Amino acid sequence: MNKNIIYVFLLFLAVTLKTIGQNHEHIIINKEQLSYIKENLGQAPLFDQTLAKVRAKLDAEIAAGFDVPIPKDLAGGYTHETHRKNYLLMEQAGSVYRITGDEKYAIFIKEMLFKYAELYPTLDLHPATRSYSRGKLFWQCLNDANWLVSVSQAYDSIYEWLNNRERKLIEAQLLKPFAEFLSTGNPQFFNRIHNHSTWACAAVGLTGLAIGDEQLVKNALYGLEEDGLSAKAHDNDGALIKSDTKGFLAQIDGLFSPDGLYSEGPYYHRYAIYPFLLFAVGLENAKPELEIFKYRDGSLLKSVNTLLAESNEKGDFFPLNDAQKGMSIYNSSLISAVDIAYYYGGRNPSLLSIAKTQDAVNLDATGMAVGLDLPKAEPLVRKSMVIKDGANGDLGALGILRSGDGKELIFKFGSQGMGHGHFDKLSYSFYNKGFEVVQDYGMARFVNIEQKGGGGYLKENTTFAKQTIGHNTLVINETSHFNGNTDIAELHAPYLNFKDISNTNIQVISASDTNAYEKIKMTRTLFMLDDSFFDNALTIDLFKVNSEKPNQYDLPLYYQGQWISTNFEYQIPDNLGKLGSANGYQHIWKEAESTLDGSNMQFTWLNQGKFYTYTAASHQGDELIAGRLGATDSNFNLRRDPMLIQRRKNATTTSFASITETHGAYSPVDEKAINPYSKIKSINIELDNEEFTVLRIKTDDKEGVLAIANKDFDSKHLVNFKGTNLKWEGPYYFNLMENKQ
Amino acid sequence: MNKNIIYVFLLFLAVTLKTIGQNHEHIIINKEQLSYIKENLGQAPLFDQTLAKVRAKLDAEIAAGFDVPIPKDLAGGYTHETHRKNYLLMEQAGSVYRITGDEKYAIFIKEMLFKYAELYPTLDLHPATRSYSRGKLFWQCLNDANWLVSVSQAYDSIYEWLNNRERKLIEAQLLKPFAEFLSTGNPQFFNRIHNHSTWACAAVGLTGLAIGDEQLVKNALYGLEEDGLSAKAHDNDGALIKSDTKGFLAQIDGLFSPDGLYSEGPYYHRYAIYPFLLFAVGLENAKPELEIFKYRDGSLLKSVNTLLAESNEKGDFFPLNDAQKGMSIYNSSLISAVDIAYYYGGRNPSLLSIAKTQDAVNLDATGMAVGLDLPKAEPLVRKSMVIKDGANGDLGALGILRSGDGKELIFKFGSQGMGHGHFDKLSYSFYNKGFEVVQDYGMARFVNIEQKGGGGYLKENTTFAKQTIGHNTLVINETSHFNGNTDIAELHAPYLNFKDISNTNIQVISASDTNAYEKIKMTRTLFMLDDSFFDNALTIDLFKVNSEKPNQYDLPLYYQGQWISTNFEYQIPDNLGKLGSANGYQHIWKEAESTLDGSNMQFTWLNQGKFYTYTAASHQGDELIAGRLGATDSNFNLRRDPMLIQRRKNATTTSFASITETHGAYSPVDEKAINPYSKIKSINIELDNEEFTVLRIKTDDKEGVLAIANKDFDSKHLVNFKGTNLKWEGPYYFNLMENKQ
Ligand SMILES: [Ca+2]
Ligand SMILES: [Ca+2]
Ligand SMILES: [Ca+2]
Ligand SMILES: [Mg+2]
Ligand SMILES: [Mg+2]
Ligand SMILES: [Mg+2]
Ligand SMILES: [Mg+2]
Repeated sequence: MNKNIIYVFLLFLAVTLKTIGQNHEHIIINKEQLSYIKENLGQAPLFDQTLAKVRAKLDAEIAAGFDVPIPKDLAGGYTHETHRKNYLLMEQAGSVYRITGDEKYAIFIKEMLFKYAELYPTLDLHPATRSYSRGKLFWQCLNDANWLVSVSQAYDSIYEWLNNRERKLIEAQLLKPFAEFLSTGNPQFFNRIHNHSTWACAAVGLTGLAIGDEQLVKNALYGLEEDGLSAKAHDNDGALIKSDTKGFLAQIDGLFSPDGLYSEGPYYHRYAIYPFLLFAVGLENAKPELEIFKYRDGSLLKSVNTLLAESNEKGDFFPLNDAQKGMSIYNSSLISAVDIAYYYGGRNPSLLSIAKTQDAVNLDATGMAVGLDLPKAEPLVRKSMVIKDGANGDLGALGILRSGDGKELIFKFGSQGMGHGHFDKLSYSFYNKGFEVVQDYGMARFVNIEQKGGGGYLKENTTFAKQTIGHNTLVINETSHFNGNTDIAELHAPYLNFKDISNTNIQVISASDTNAYEKIKMTRTLFMLDDSFFDNALTIDLFKVNSEKPNQYDLPLYYQGQWISTNFEYQIPDNLGKLGSANGYQHIWKEAESTLDGSNMQFTWLNQGKFYTYTAASHQGDELIAGRLGATDSNFNLRRDPMLIQRRKNATTTSFASITETHGAYSPVDEKAINPYSKIKSINIELDNEEFTVLRIKTDDKEGVLAIANKDFDSKHLVNFKGTNLKWEGPYYFNLMENKQ
Repeated sequence: MNKNIIYVFLLFLAVTLKTIGQNHEHIIINKEQLSYIKENLGQAPLFDQTLAKVRAKLDAEIAAGFDVPIPKDLAGGYTHETHRKNYLLMEQAGSVYRITGDEKYAIFIKEMLFKYAELYPTLDLHPATRSYSRGKLFWQCLNDANWLVSVSQAYDSIYEWLNNRERKLIEAQLLKPFAEFLSTGNPQFFNRIHNHSTWACAAVGLTGLAIGDEQLVKNALYGLEEDGLSAKAHDNDGALIKSDTKGFLAQIDGLFSPDGLYSEGPYYHRYAIYPFLLFAVGLENAKPELEIFKYRDGSLLKSVNTLLAESNEKGDFFPLNDAQKGMSIYNSSLISAVDIAYYYGGRNPSLLSIAKTQDAVNLDATGMAVGLDLPKAEPLVRKSMVIKDGANGDLGALGILRSGDGKELIFKFGSQGMGHGHFDKLSYSFYNKGFEVVQDYGMARFVNIEQKGGGGYLKENTTFAKQTIGHNTLVINETSHFNGNTDIAELHAPYLNFKDISNTNIQVISASDTNAYEKIKMTRTLFMLDDSFFDNALTIDLFKVNSEKPNQYDLPLYYQGQWISTNFEYQIPDNLGKLGSANGYQHIWKEAESTLDGSNMQFTWLNQGKFYTYTAASHQGDELIAGRLGATDSNFNLRRDPMLIQRRKNATTTSFASITETHGAYSPVDEKAINPYSKIKSINIELDNEEFTVLRIKTDDKEGVLAIANKDFDSKHLVNFKGTNLKWEGPYYFNLMENKQ
């Protein structure tokens, strides 16, 4: 062929293939959705504003130029952060290109993809060796999967605009081998029931949809049939790898409870929700017959509501299990989640108020729908709830008691949560208006801050943050639950005894565990009372432990704030020693100690302008330890947070009862101390046997009797108490008397 | 006289006296001002809103009834807080009565005053004995004076409405003896140059004006001629009592510098400004011939501007000397101050923006003027400044360097500040956007929280907070400045060497002290550089000490935030010991230590989403100590704050040089670590003699030479440095070179 004929032929080929390209069904914004978006530009201020912001950012980045460096660094390092930035920019450029049609963004993506297509075939595994699944661009496959989830979308956005040669090059040299590396190349990463595999399946599945490779899609949906994985293999977090089920659908089945609770906790839920929903959107467009959003009773969209419910009044997620504090509903993956849940999930107007505070929307049809409907926003009302845990809903639950005026009591009695789980059975935390009053420590990790162990998990996460003594729950004989063994912990969970969250005057949840410690049963019952009974709102905690053998019991209170006063004397040492040598105790300095005389102990602290007083029943000889984190912390990885520990030695079956009262106020601006003293005079355990526990609570002018059934919760009960018969039906009895002598 | 005649006579008397009453010249809102307020009701939303709020609060209190209990408690206790509440309510009720004419409020005041008039004559001194000037209603005369400042205004407000019998009763049984008790009855309280006496004089003076007693007014203005006070007497804070001058005018002369700096610091300035201004307003109405607002070059109004300048970007006052953190321009006395300064001080529109954020105004003509003019508000621009200290402006100064983008460096080289002063010569603190980066500890006191030592000063205030080691300044031989003696400290102050705050690229203040330690001269030079030289904003600290004898030098850095990393190895101990046994050292635990090898030390921390890196030159053998507050703290009165101490032993004349770089960003919501590493490679002292100190600062690609004159600051200088001659005129030379090899 002469040159001219070649030209004509190539032109013909290009036109033909361009036509083929134009039949491509887009995975995130389909054709109708694109028209819908374009028609409504200029009508939805938040959408327009998000578009303008993203565009301005992209324009600046395009002007500055990009880099595709040879992979070298851990999280926080230059090459890691650059590859991360690149995929986020490509994903956004793809959306902006689709919406505006401005080729500048398509060119940006194409040029970057070419660079990656050049680099990728030359890459061996990333030089860092710490991951059980080393990636190529990043130190772990997980980040490679993050990359591919975004890049498959970006590629899809410019698919029609590329010519065949370009598509072929990008698919053959980059996308397909990339997807294969993350699936068949790393079954230990791909074939799990775990957030890692959710990212892997979404990455591989979205790539399959984008490049039209059915095998990739099938692998993503159903997993690899053969994976040759050992039943004993663990990941870096100590979680088992091998699973009976696999693939994206199995993950929906296995990682969410029927109530939409994600077993690893909200921090990882937030992380996994993005690939779950994005792949689902892709499937909804490409394979509507799957009805993915209806799959398993609408599990995915239900889980968005559950995730939002696991945030406090300020929008921060409860830092359960491995979780960095401060992660919140303002994270970008929540913007996606909220918009997608709104669009595909029945247009719930309370989601709009979240979108409003997020102040940004998805640059797709879901974001446009939210933007247009924003004026219909209704407030998100966070409610008390008991959210069942476990794929079958039979592995305990997460309980949240809410007061309606900002108090939130979080009671954790669910499953372990795999490698990111903490040994924290029956632990609780307490918030007021979104501020921590009694904290859950969270994790020992500074995500992506390279100086802190490459941004990964620090050793103190294992030696302290996961340990039982790091939580507000009972520690027996200075050992952690299940002796700190995740595999065993994964097999068991506490269970609900009873709950009553039907009104906000008095709410209660009771749960027990019989596995965390051998031959020991622990039962915790948490009440939340509003101020209609006593003068102030109260939480009441009854922690009962059944054991035939004598033990040492430690019950910590991780209060946050300024120590104000105690009603007991204590001694402070001249040198600070460690509280113990293992299981987290080696990280606690003993700042003060006291031996109680059997009367009530009282401790008042001040936090964020409110007073809190903890009043607890004691046995003569109980010890009180004021602890401070920071011992054995050779890199200053732990916060120097305080705790109070009530210790009872050499006891068999016994109970701990306490009240935390929220009272008064203080502001350094007007320096007025309002009601700085607790109204609670005492809480006493008056009766405690196999059938009942009876507590008596006194203030100056009131007296309450709280009787709790220890079995047959729904039956009629009769207990003779100090000469009177208390009769009731149901799990508890509460009677309040005015007592103005 | 028969009954009828008596009636007629009494009626005549009442009418006559009512007439007399109606000629009463009001001290806070005069007749013209009252018309002005009434005319403009409904036109100034913030005024109307403040009035409505105060009225609603008063209505609720009136409905609930009041109590005038027999004095018993300390601050925070019931009787204290009730008497405090009462006077605030009376003052407000007075204003509302004047403005609305609603007799309900006048009745409230009258009934309460009657109760007080019944109680007061029966009272002996308050039972608590801890004050050098015990009060009657309160444990200290100071609170009694607070009471009378408000109550004299309230009485004045209803003066015309009361009949003569009522006036006579209230004046004779309550106001006059009350004022006399606070003046002639307590000269040690009344006749000082101190905020206590400002309150006393204002209380007595306002009472004199309200009841028409010239002697009281004269005593207030000019003090008591004879007081019989001992030259050696001290108050509870360790300040000397006896003064050569006395009275309100002498306090204006003695407590403010010519620049309006209040010697005790902004926390007490805020406290004193209310009586200063209120009595001034009263004098302006009753004795306009005094021209009180012009007195001493307009000292009072000037001081309001100075006080505002001593707040950070968030509006919190710098916690210099005894000061509770969180006290801010939102305190109610600042509402008064801002409105009065606006009305009487030339209607400065930047005060209006403060009033806006305060969200309330005075219920008088000043508040109405502010309310009406609010739309004209202009932002308050906080500037760099050097505010002279001392009544004659010759006792050093307070330096504030500001960056324009929220960084604030506070350099304290002024007078001691009497009993509330700290031994903190040449100390500094550093803020970014109103958040503490390098903190001044403030005071060890929880004001009005009764459980904490009755709400008063805690012993740790003396043993730690006032001590030199509690500040970011050099401690020599583990002793505090002036050996912790306030009387001697009061006699001396550091002095300014030079300053340049003319532009924000590079700002500098240099000051020296020759008295804090015997035969030792200390010179600190603080630079603030914006990002136009290196990549990020920097502060540079050169601390030079001249001594013939060898000493131990400790230079602490009270950083706030999360420890990230160091470039040096350190050891952590198995048990925490105390850093010392006295002068504040007994309160510091030694968490880690290191011996430096003479190269630069570097320390990075994270605070409020920003990274900070401190890089310091060192000598071989310098020690680095990571300290933590909380040792010898038997009541948990101290915050567990951290510090880093650079220690140099056995050195004579020597210098410390360091840089603090602000860099990058981190948010737990997106978990991106932007520029978490410092760009600074080193800072070195290349030359250091009597005439010059030359520093060299290096980054990867830049190098700066900073030469500082140690004398003859304004002269021409020539220094031969590494073979080149550096020539310049003025106190310093800075040259920056690109260095891209
Ligand atoms: Ca992990
Ligand atoms: Ca109540
Ligand atoms: Ca004082
Ligand atoms: Mg935890
Ligand atoms: Mg767990
Ligand atoms: Mg201080
Ligand atoms: Mg001082």
